[in-house]
Amino acid sequence: MKRGQAMKNENIAKNKFDEDLLEIRKTILNNLKSTEKNSAKLMDNLAADKGKMLRALFVLIGGSFGNIDRKKLIEMASAIELLHLATLVHDDIIDEANYRRGKSTIHSSYGVKAGIFTGDYLFAQSYVLFSKNVSPKSIIEVSNTIKTICVGEINQFFSVFSLESDIKSYLKRINGKCASLFSLSLAIGAYEGNADKAIIKKLKSIGYYTGMAFQLIDDILDITSETNFLGKPSGNDIKEGIYTLPLLYEIKNSNNLIIENLRNGSTEKVIEILRTSEGLTKAKETAKKYTFKSLKLIESLPDGFEKSYLNQIVEKMLVREY
Amino acid sequence: MKRGQAMKNENIAKNKFDEDLLEIRKTILNNLKSTEKNSAKLMDNLAADKGKMLRALFVLIGGSFGNIDRKKLIEMASAIELLHLATLVHDDIIDEANYRRGKSTIHSSYGVKAGIFTGDYLFAQSYVLFSKNVSPKSIIEVSNTIKTICVGEINQFFSVFSLESDIKSYLKRINGKCASLFSLSLAIGAYEGNADKAIIKKLKSIGYYTGMAFQLIDDILDITSETNFLGKPSGNDIKEGIYTLPLLYEIKNSNNLIIENLRNGSTEKVIEILRTSEGLTKAKETAKKYTFKSLKLIESLPDGFEKSYLNQIVEKMLVREY
Repeated sequence: MKRGQAMKNENIAKNKFDEDLLEIRKTILNNLKSTEKNSAKLMDNLAADKGKMLRALFVLIGGSFGNIDRKKLIEMASAIELLHLATLVHDDIIDEANYRRGKSTIHSSYGVKAGIFTGDYLFAQSYVLFSKNVSPKSIIEVSNTIKTICVGEINQFFSVFSLESDIKSYLKRINGKCASLFSLSLAIGAYEGNADKAIIKKLKSIGYYTGMAFQLIDDILDITSETNFLGKPSGNDIKEGIYTLPLLYEIKNSNNLIIENLRNGSTEKVIEILRTSEGLTKAKETAKKYTFKSLKLIESLPDGFEKSYLNQIVEKMLVREY
Repeated sequence: MKRGQAMKNENIAKNKFDEDLLEIRKTILNNLKSTEKNSAKLMDNLAADKGKMLRALFVLIGGSFGNIDRKKLIEMASAIELLHLATLVHDDIIDEANYRRGKSTIHSSYGVKAGIFTGDYLFAQSYVLFSKNVSPKSIIEVSNTIKTICVGEINQFFSVFSLESDIKSYLKRINGKCASLFSLSLAIGAYEGNADKAIIKKLKSIGYYTGMAFQLIDDILDITSETNFLGKPSGNDIKEGIYTLPLLYEIKNSNNLIIENLRNGSTEKVIEILRTSEGLTKAKETAKKYTFKSLKLIESLPDGFEKSYLNQIVEKMLVREY
């Protein structure tokens, strides 16, 4: 194929995904409708949130490696986004986050009680959509992913402010926080579309590596940038007792200055030291390793629009300044 | 069939259910196991809770009207109990309940954050078990039931301390709180066992009427008894702003003395007036109507052990002193 042809096809591919994303957005809005006045109020609050729809894009891309009805794929992608939204509503309670993407969160507008049941409602609604479109085996995968997310959150909760947190637990934790849902998103469409088993396996791994790198980079940016993407001041994780990889490397290497400042609650000082630490360099290297693994696996996928599109997205996500 | 024979058979039936309940208990315990240290700790906390397993019993009874593999039925009953447990963990956060059946609740032992994700984990685990044993159509029913429960809780939350709450919303609310899961429990086994459609419909209604009467009686007992079954002082609902049927009847009839005392926050006085009110009498009549409807429908089921056993359970549940 000539270069010109490839570029033209790439544009067609982009347009195709844009149309699908519009359909997904409509499906999500339909699934957020409620005939009940009070729940409708809560759902309206969520409907305004457009998000990046990264996970939906992953479902579309993954699905293209199999043979699956477009409508089914769109509903699966919408279900994944609803599931993601459910975890965000509960996460925001945990993180005591009052804003998400500039909008006030459910629990900050209506209280923790409303937030808990809004999240539960969204979980149930996403299962309705999954049940209509996927096999029982995939519903088990979805449920196991939710369990992994919960275990990640539970482990994070129990490890706050703990100098005993180790790197292995950290990596497991960020798998729950991010990588597990990326992995499910990339694989579910392919699985339901009876794609080649080796390709499904690759997609799962690409989702995993991408999610690991994505979360690692976020955790690094929390230390290196002045304000992070949520508009929170830098070092927010450490202030909340969530010890991420750069810090864990320093704790492992018995950096007494850091440990002492942590014990004293001098988080500003800890962040200052971390910014020029070997721990930060090592964390960046770890992020690069995951990024490299992801891009290498993408390279091994069958050539086509989707492969190049996936490559673009992953590069855009992971090749950031920090 | 002679009376002696019927009684003997009844005992056999009871024994059969006892054995099934033991199996269900084992299945629940297996499903509460976690390989993760922190989640295992939370699950262990829940494993001690034996409960009444009413919903599991309903699944067993409903299932006997169809033709279904015993192991499948036991796993479905266990899944319903896990689902119920998930809602209890989240409910206890909402109700700020520190104890349930004498044991400290998850959120009171480990905090709200742990409570939220423990509930989510249990939801996911119950879906794992459902997905292995029921059709996609039943998974949609399960999900719709969870939505009804959530809508009930959301509506309750938005109606606290509101003199505008009406009887229709109250009945809808207690459907979510109790009746919807009773209805699902009685019907799911019969549906999956391809029982006669008319019987499935009856079982759904029996579950609904039983649940409505059960919740109504609980709400009445909150006013009439000195301490309620949770060991809370009487009138707890009213103190928390949850206005139940006896009170709603009085508000509807513009009982100014009650309305005034509600406005002043003199809940003790409100409870005292309610105890001899027409509203209480009318609420008792409403509970009796639902009980009667349930028992009448049970009477119309095909004769057999299960019918008489269901009748026994429902009578034991609903024919209480208040």
